[in-house]
Amino acid sequence: MTETDILSQLRLPAIADADDSARAARLQELLDDKTKPPGSLGRIEDLALQLGLILQSEAPQLRAPQLVVCAADHGLAAQGVSAFPQEVTQQMVGNFLAGGAAVSVLARQHGIALTVVDCGVAHDFAAQPGLVVRKVARGAADASRGPAMSAAQCAEAIGHGMALVRDLPGNALLLGEMGIGNSSAAALLTARLSGHSIDACTGSGTGVAGPALAHKLRVLQSVFLRHADARTPLAALAAFGGLEIATLVGVVLQGARERRVLVVDGFITTAAVLVAQALAPAVRSFCVFSHLSGERGHAVALGHLGARPLLDLGLRLGEGSGAALAWPLLQSASLLLREMASFSGAGVSNRDAPQR
Amino acid sequence: MTETDILSQLRLPAIADADDSARAARLQELLDDKTKPPGSLGRIEDLALQLGLILQSEAPQLRAPQLVVCAADHGLAAQGVSAFPQEVTQQMVGNFLAGGAAVSVLARQHGIALTVVDCGVAHDFAAQPGLVVRKVARGAADASRGPAMSAAQCAEAIGHGMALVRDLPGNALLLGEMGIGNSSAAALLTARLSGHSIDACTGSGTGVAGPALAHKLRVLQSVFLRHADARTPLAALAAFGGLEIATLVGVVLQGARERRVLVVDGFITTAAVLVAQALAPAVRSFCVFSHLSGERGHAVALGHLGARPLLDLGLRLGEGSGAALAWPLLQSASLLLREMASFSGAGVSNRDAPQR
Repeated sequence: MTETDILSQLRLPAIADADDSARAARLQELLDDKTKPPGSLGRIEDLALQLGLILQSEAPQLRAPQLVVCAADHGLAAQGVSAFPQEVTQQMVGNFLAGGAAVSVLARQHGIALTVVDCGVAHDFAAQPGLVVRKVARGAADASRGPAMSAAQCAEAIGHGMALVRDLPGNALLLGEMGIGNSSAAALLTARLSGHSIDACTGSGTGVAGPALAHKLRVLQSVFLRHADARTPLAALAAFGGLEIATLVGVVLQGARERRVLVVDGFITTAAVLVAQALAPAVRSFCVFSHLSGERGHAVALGHLGARPLLDLGLRLGEGSGAALAWPLLQSASLLLREMASFSGAGVSNRDAPQR
Repeated sequence: MTETDILSQLRLPAIADADDSARAARLQELLDDKTKPPGSLGRIEDLALQLGLILQSEAPQLRAPQLVVCAADHGLAAQGVSAFPQEVTQQMVGNFLAGGAAVSVLARQHGIALTVVDCGVAHDFAAQPGLVVRKVARGAADASRGPAMSAAQCAEAIGHGMALVRDLPGNALLLGEMGIGNSSAAALLTARLSGHSIDACTGSGTGVAGPALAHKLRVLQSVFLRHADARTPLAALAAFGGLEIATLVGVVLQGARERRVLVVDGFITTAAVLVAQALAPAVRSFCVFSHLSGERGHAVALGHLGARPLLDLGLRLGEGSGAALAWPLLQSASLLLREMASFSGAGVSNRDAPQR
């Protein structure tokens, strides 16, 4: 199956850029007429403008936000690249559904619907509310021994992500993930797609340090070289994995196609955006980058995308926790645009008013 | 009235530091047992720990948050230090109460009670819900011609702030302010109390730039020299103003005394914390710094306090808008501490678990 085959099988939708200079000018005018010095709400104003462009409205309203946590295992975990054992992936899926994980608490706080997707966990879950099973395999294969996925598996996972979005309500998607070993896959993808070194893209993940981090680096160097010919976005994705990242690529593509606001979490979900953006550059304009992760490669990935995230709190948990933490800022931006008074409406003197 | 007279008249309460090493250790243990890699929630974990210390609880719960917007006018505004005319102070008070200002929208979003305090606006307001009149004068005097306040006025305003807090419910106070000219007062106070130059502490405020900014700088230099002998915290506060800042000093002192969480907004409210901390160093431990303002002197003031704010979004509006924007992060921190599962409770393998 060639890259072209995959792309044609997926029937990748045409994605229009969110930007529109006439609407942007009108939104800017509205923001400048709000009762505040121009620009004094800083990046919240940029965010309001972006939301207005994505939702094609001068009074954008965020509806029924959906946090999608894509989970899968990684054969590469057997090479000792993570501080936690592989079984933690399935245990954390249980924790998400039971409401005890960080992302569960944060989604509850903000009224965000949480959907956990088994994209390829090495465990068979009983059916339960909040869990969607879109399992392509019981974990991606070990990328140190061959490709993590076949081209067909990669296409299947992307297709799952696209279908998932079609089934979800609302106009905003928050991206989350879980998968022991997936900071390795994200490092490999980021290095390959950004042209930066493995070194610059590799961090401690869930907490490897010292000799264990040196080992992780050696493993990733060797995997990177083994798949030196996997240079297109989809070839790299298939080579390095994982199934949850491929599913997220589908989520991003379909979400942008439907003009939903895409709230990107940390390093892993940004790697999915890197792949999606390489396939369809316009997806970038639908992305709100929620935070700068403490994980080393994230700044590289964000730099490649020219993205400046909202928060910088040293988070490195994943799950979608950073996206959920930043969510109220998106709500604030849309509310300020909708509800703040204008100078004329409120009888407030603007700066050009004559001094009495 | 001497400084000692003022202090004894105010009967400044003894303020104990929020820190407690035994409780801090216990809170850290609880955080480390949550189902996440240790430290992976970054500064949200520090925040959770601080809330636990302030509220003396391993399950801190924020109750009935109160945003107090202290408003007053500044005689110095007549010297052309602001881009907006002085009447905007009273117009914005009207806008706060009518619900159309940024802080009104944000307080509504988060269910934060908003109290607007007339500490010294050059206008007499009709009684209305949400407005508390604690007017010491119709504006502070022009600091370029004499002290902005007498020592007695300064003491009266601080006393008002203390009394205000005693009348408010809840365990968290968000600090806000309004006053055309108050970035000048904050610059003067910050320079005097931190030892930095007026230059390093002066920014564009509501938007003065170019020749107008050079003029503002010249005016502030001259005011600074005129009051070269106002070196104690209260003498500096009386010399430079304003009435809203003095009222906020009282809010901070009484809030810390009652072990409330103090959510500091931008440059002006941080200047009030500088004064309060100089009088009672322990107040610092009750402060959560919500954001780094785009206003130049704010980084200087924060540096002096050794504070690292949560957000960095280029905000420079004041009103308490940054404190309100950051508020959900405090709620998240307390919820994560209260509601996240522990490793043992959720049946999740910790990193020390043997690899299967």
